[in-house]
Amino acid sequence: MATMQQVADRAGVSIATVSFVVNGTKYVTPATTAKVTAAMRELKFRGNVVARALASRRTRIVALLFPTTGNRFSPTTSEFFMNAAERASERGYHLVLWPVDPAGDDLDDLVSGGLVDGVVLMEVRMDDPRVVKLSELGVPFTLIGRTRDAAELPYVDIDFETTIEDGLDHLQGLGHRRFGLVLENLEGTPMAGYAPHLRVEDTFRRSVVDRGCAGTVVYAGPGSEGGRDAARRLLEADPDVTAVLVMKDDSSAGLLVGLYAAGRRVPDDVSVLSIASSAAAGDQHHPRLSTMIAPGRELGVRAADALIDRLDGTSTELPHFLLPCVLRPAESVAAAPTR
Amino acid sequence: MATMQQVADRAGVSIATVSFVVNGTKYVTPATTAKVTAAMRELKFRGNVVARALASRRTRIVALLFPTTGNRFSPTTSEFFMNAAERASERGYHLVLWPVDPAGDDLDDLVSGGLVDGVVLMEVRMDDPRVVKLSELGVPFTLIGRTRDAAELPYVDIDFETTIEDGLDHLQGLGHRRFGLVLENLEGTPMAGYAPHLRVEDTFRRSVVDRGCAGTVVYAGPGSEGGRDAARRLLEADPDVTAVLVMKDDSSAGLLVGLYAAGRRVPDDVSVLSIASSAAAGDQHHPRLSTMIAPGRELGVRAADALIDRLDGTSTELPHFLLPCVLRPAESVAAAPTR
Repeated sequence: MATMQQVADRAGVSIATVSFVVNGTKYVTPATTAKVTAAMRELKFRGNVVARALASRRTRIVALLFPTTGNRFSPTTSEFFMNAAERASERGYHLVLWPVDPAGDDLDDLVSGGLVDGVVLMEVRMDDPRVVKLSELGVPFTLIGRTRDAAELPYVDIDFETTIEDGLDHLQGLGHRRFGLVLENLEGTPMAGYAPHLRVEDTFRRSVVDRGCAGTVVYAGPGSEGGRDAARRLLEADPDVTAVLVMKDDSSAGLLVGLYAAGRRVPDDVSVLSIASSAAAGDQHHPRLSTMIAPGRELGVRAADALIDRLDGTSTELPHFLLPCVLRPAESVAAAPTR
Repeated sequence: MATMQQVADRAGVSIATVSFVVNGTKYVTPATTAKVTAAMRELKFRGNVVARALASRRTRIVALLFPTTGNRFSPTTSEFFMNAAERASERGYHLVLWPVDPAGDDLDDLVSGGLVDGVVLMEVRMDDPRVVKLSELGVPFTLIGRTRDAAELPYVDIDFETTIEDGLDHLQGLGHRRFGLVLENLEGTPMAGYAPHLRVEDTFRRSVVDRGCAGTVVYAGPGSEGGRDAARRLLEADPDVTAVLVMKDDSSAGLLVGLYAAGRRVPDDVSVLSIASSAAAGDQHHPRLSTMIAPGRELGVRAADALIDRLDGTSTELPHFLLPCVLRPAESVAAAPTR
C-alpha cells in the first residue's frame, strides 16, 4: 500500500495537506483536494474510512434523500443526482442516493449514527415534515426545493415563478390569450403539497389575471390516459384555449393525442409547452415538444457546493439560489390561430 | 436515550436478540429483525453506527452501484432500486445508490474503507471490468445482470432469451413472419457490450432462423428522431416487415411516428411490441404499447435477498435467478395483415 508521503509526492503537495484532506481537519481548496484524491486513487492509497471517521467524526459521505413513495425518479431527477454526485466527487466527497419515507420517520436511523456528514433533500413539500426532523437532528442539510417559508433554510431550486412568467411571455408574444395548465393530481397521496406544483399553479393563476388573459387548470391522472382525459376536460372548460402548459412528462403524449382526437392540430390550433422537463423527454414526442428545460445540471452542482461549503466551512452564507427553466423551442408551439 | 432493555421489551424479544441485531453478530430471522428495528426506531434508540461498525466490522449498509456515464436511470432501473431498498430495509439493512465510473476505477475507494458490507452491481456488460475489480477486492457482491460467463458469479437477471422467444411466439401466433428489432446504438460508448442488448440480439437472430422467419435488426440513435430514423431504415431493409420489437423507451414514440409517416398503421399494418419496459412507459403512447414488462420489483427484492443472505450467512448457495418479462397486451399488437 502507498504511504501518505507517496501520495503527497504524486499530488505535488505537502504531507500535511494530504493529511488535511484525508482527515478533513482543515480547509483545502477544491482544486488541491481533487489533486490529492486523484493521487490517492492512482496509488490505491487506502485509508480505513471507518477508523478515520471515528477519529475525525467525518466520513466524507453525503446523502441525497429521495422519497420511497411512488416511482418519482424522473430523468430530470436523475440529472440532479448524477451532477451533484460528480461535483461531490470533485470535492473529495461521495454522494449517495438514500431512499427515505416521505414522513421522515426513518431519518433518525440514517443520520444520527454519524455515517453521513450531511444531506441534500429533494422533492420538497410546502410543509415538509422531513425538514423539521433534519433541523431537530442538527445534521447539516441543503434543500433542492423550498418549503413555504424557506427564508432561514439553505436551498437551491428552480425559479418556478420566473419560469411560468417566461413561458407565458413567450406564448403571449405569439398572440395567445387563452391558456391551459396541466398538473399531476397528487390529492390524497403522500406527495400532496408538493411545492413546485403549488408555486406553478399560484403563479399561473395570478399571472393570467394580471395579463387580462384566460387560464384553466386541470389535474391529470397517470399516463397517456390521464393526458387524454385532461385534454378533454380542458377543452370542455375552455373550448377556445389555444396554448397549454404541461408539467407532467408521462401524460404529454396523451395530451397531444387528446387534442388531436378533439380536432385540434398541434401547434396549428393549440400550442403545447412542456414545463420543467428535459430536451430528451421533449424529443420523445411528435411533434417534438417545445420545453422550458429544468436546470438539473447546474442545480445539482450548486446543491453539492452549498452543502460541502458548509461542511468544509468555506462559506458561512446561507445559500439561496434560484434558477429558472430555459426555453428550448421545438415544434409544438406556434402563433395563435387567427379567427 | 432508550436502553437496549427498553428496545427488547418493546419488541418482545430478549436483550441478547437486540444485541445480535444491533451488532450483526448472529443470525436473526427477518421478521424478528424487523420487529427489533421498528422498536429501535419508535424509541429513538441510537447506536453509534460508526463505532458499532468498528466493533463488528459491519455497517449494515449495502450499495447499489450504478454507472455515472450517460443518463441511463430509467423508470425500470428506478423500480429495481426502490424495491431492493425496501427489501433491504425489511431485513435491517440500508441500501444506497452509489454512482461509479463504468471502468471501475473508483471502486477501491468505495468498498475498501469498510463503509459498505456488500454491493449490488447493475447495468452489467458482457466483459465488465467492475466485476473483476469487485472479485479482487473481496467484497461480497451480487449482480443484477450477467457477464458473458457468469456461472461462478452470484446474479439475478431478466431472462432475455425466454422473453424474446415468448414475444416472438406471441407475434407468430398472430400470423407474423417478418420481424424487426430496434436496439439502442451503443457503439463507441462506455456501455458498448451491454449484456442485455447482446443477449436479445443473439436470441432474436437465432430464433427467427429457427422459425423459418425473416428478422432485421436496426440500431437507433437518441429520442424520437432516432426512432423515426430506425423506422425508415427498417422499412428500407424489409418493406414487408409486419412486427417490430423495440427495446428503447425514448425512441418508441418516434418509431410509431416513423411507421405512420411511411403509410403503415399501427397495429393494422405493423404491430409494435415493447421489450423489457414498464406498463407506465407503454401507457405514455398512442396506441398504448403492448409490452413485455420487466420484473423490476421481483428482481430488486431477489437481488437484495441474494446479497443479504450471503452477508448474514443464511444461505451458502450461489444465487442464479432468471425471470422473464411478462406480456402485458395493450393496443399496439394485432394479427398480421392478410395479403
